[in-house]
Amino acid sequence: MNGDFNYRMPVQIICAAGVSKAISSHIKGKRVFILSDPFLFANGVAQTIGDNLEGRQVQYFSEIEPNPTCESVDLAAEQARRMGADCVIGLGGGSSLDVAKIVSCLTTNGGSIYDYYSGGTQTIENRQTQLVCIPTTAGTGSEVTNVGVFTNKKTKVKMPMVNQAFWPDLAVIDPELTYTVPPAVTASTGMDAFCHAIEAYWNRESNPISDALSLSAVKMILQNIKKAYDDPHDLGAREAMIISSLIAGISFSQTRTTGIHALSFPLTAEFGASHGTACSITLPAFIRISQEQAAEKMAAMAGYLGFGTVEELAQAVEDLMVSMNMPVRLNQLGIQEKDLQHITEVGLTPAIVHLTPAEMNTQTVYTLLKSIL
Amino acid sequence: MNGDFNYRMPVQIICAAGVSKAISSHIKGKRVFILSDPFLFANGVAQTIGDNLEGRQVQYFSEIEPNPTCESVDLAAEQARRMGADCVIGLGGGSSLDVAKIVSCLTTNGGSIYDYYSGGTQTIENRQTQLVCIPTTAGTGSEVTNVGVFTNKKTKVKMPMVNQAFWPDLAVIDPELTYTVPPAVTASTGMDAFCHAIEAYWNRESNPISDALSLSAVKMILQNIKKAYDDPHDLGAREAMIISSLIAGISFSQTRTTGIHALSFPLTAEFGASHGTACSITLPAFIRISQEQAAEKMAAMAGYLGFGTVEELAQAVEDLMVSMNMPVRLNQLGIQEKDLQHITEVGLTPAIVHLTPAEMNTQTVYTLLKSIL
Repeated sequence: MNGDFNYRMPVQIICAAGVSKAISSHIKGKRVFILSDPFLFANGVAQTIGDNLEGRQVQYFSEIEPNPTCESVDLAAEQARRMGADCVIGLGGGSSLDVAKIVSCLTTNGGSIYDYYSGGTQTIENRQTQLVCIPTTAGTGSEVTNVGVFTNKKTKVKMPMVNQAFWPDLAVIDPELTYTVPPAVTASTGMDAFCHAIEAYWNRESNPISDALSLSAVKMILQNIKKAYDDPHDLGAREAMIISSLIAGISFSQTRTTGIHALSFPLTAEFGASHGTACSITLPAFIRISQEQAAEKMAAMAGYLGFGTVEELAQAVEDLMVSMNMPVRLNQLGIQEKDLQHITEVGLTPAIVHLTPAEMNTQTVYTLLKSIL
Repeated sequence: MNGDFNYRMPVQIICAAGVSKAISSHIKGKRVFILSDPFLFANGVAQTIGDNLEGRQVQYFSEIEPNPTCESVDLAAEQARRMGADCVIGLGGGSSLDVAKIVSCLTTNGGSIYDYYSGGTQTIENRQTQLVCIPTTAGTGSEVTNVGVFTNKKTKVKMPMVNQAFWPDLAVIDPELTYTVPPAVTASTGMDAFCHAIEAYWNRESNPISDALSLSAVKMILQNIKKAYDDPHDLGAREAMIISSLIAGISFSQTRTTGIHALSFPLTAEFGASHGTACSITLPAFIRISQEQAAEKMAAMAGYLGFGTVEELAQAVEDLMVSMNMPVRLNQLGIQEKDLQHITEVGLTPAIVHLTPAEMNTQTVYTLLKSIL
């Protein structure tokens, strides 16, 4: 047990079916800027939330794309500033929530995201604009973290940005918002949440609080993801998935992630894999190597989940992914052997890679990637 | 699973052996008021903490008694106001931490605790004084709750007070501070933490986050309490106990407690039992009746802890208490059958009693008490 740790997770959470339609009393601002992707605007979800914000001026920005670029951030920030937004709501998957975090800061800190990130030298002093995050997928956990992940369009590099001002004031967990998520997205976002939970658990920065949360989250995900995939109308499974994603989010908000997420960035930015797919494709391999330095702890997790060995857990996760039509080999993403060296190098860039409970260097990462080519 | 819940636990936690001597960078104030009991002042622990607060004016109040009265609170508040304290540190068991919570509010809100509590009609508007809690026993959990428990000396009634301003800014978890706790106190405070964890778990207001934390806390306590009792120098057990008390505290900060704590108030205020003893004496009986409305959930906990049935868990807890020389019968506290009606009536007063997963009324509570007379 790691008895030397800090913990802080100041986000207020409200969770209930339908609660996203009843958040008016929690909104302090008068001018609310709601960020979403085009789909959530077209299907009326964003507007339903806005329509229920009694007496506020509401403006919508519905152009958030997957793996949001710094250019999108700046475009949204400009519009939020122009309306004088005093509350920013991010509605959607990780992309919308992450953009809401930085936009809520830029409204009063001014400038471009490039001033603060990816070589920028300015510091976000504080955040005066209320920040509310409403996930619509069960996976991101972004609603309870102080991390945003953005892609530098010029360099194609996707990198996380961490800031104390990124903790949302309020996370709104409404399982009803996930009822229409299609099976493939249920699978990939749910496996992203699984990665969050297990990467927090085997993390070199894990602590007894994150361990407790991670154990619970992995169990809930294993018990429910296939049910939610097979039957999108299994409301119990939907509720369990969005709550386990939340719990996994709290857990990795304390520890950060590890090699799985580090390697996912080039797989997404350069090979077009969805975030959940880019993460989970290396998950079974990482479970196997986790035994290198976290053997006892991983054996305890396997036992808690009902598996005899960590290898059985790794195989079960791989089988689960196959059963949900998820790729488990890099060649299924169009990756060839000649690409592995580059993926290795880019994947070793983020500092989080060294939180993996196994030695991460050019040779070990290349070997891991080769084993799942 | 309860999918309809709110969660907020804004306290920043720092945990490490020796960390209480290195908190200067976390203290925002210039005039620090340190509250403790006489023992922690006499043995130099309070002063060691104060001596390490570089450049601050420090004043000590070392007259906190067990089950603190409103009169003690007012006396401390008067001194804190007189020095113009802008930081209040509570050091000790639950008593000192609870008093620190209300004193940090009274420094700027003015008046007596009786103005806000036990019939008082005023409202604590906010808290401008930094509040730091440093537990020296592994049990209270008060460092991560917004509850204080005070005794009205006039009426002899011991009742909890809940306030948003009572969330500490900082909880400092230093296992070294518990190394000198004597076995009897290790046992009673540790069993208090066990009650926090299990009362949060079977609570009608439990949620998936508190459930995850409670499961982990009860397991850690069962694995370590007897070790810490038998060998006060078992540093691993000491660390595990103060961290599990912390985790149990986070859990019950979300749910509040149940009948165990409700019944403990008259046992302490009128029969002189320590808080941990007053709680744990009814614990096995409450575990047994928890099956009335939380059978499946309690069976899951028993299984997680390695017991075949909930009854086996209840018996193991009772045996554990006996092995630590703790009373398991009310007559061991000098209570007679003629007292039970009164204890029942007082115990049914706090609203938390109805968070018990069994019907709590004059008849059921009397029957429960009679069964352990």
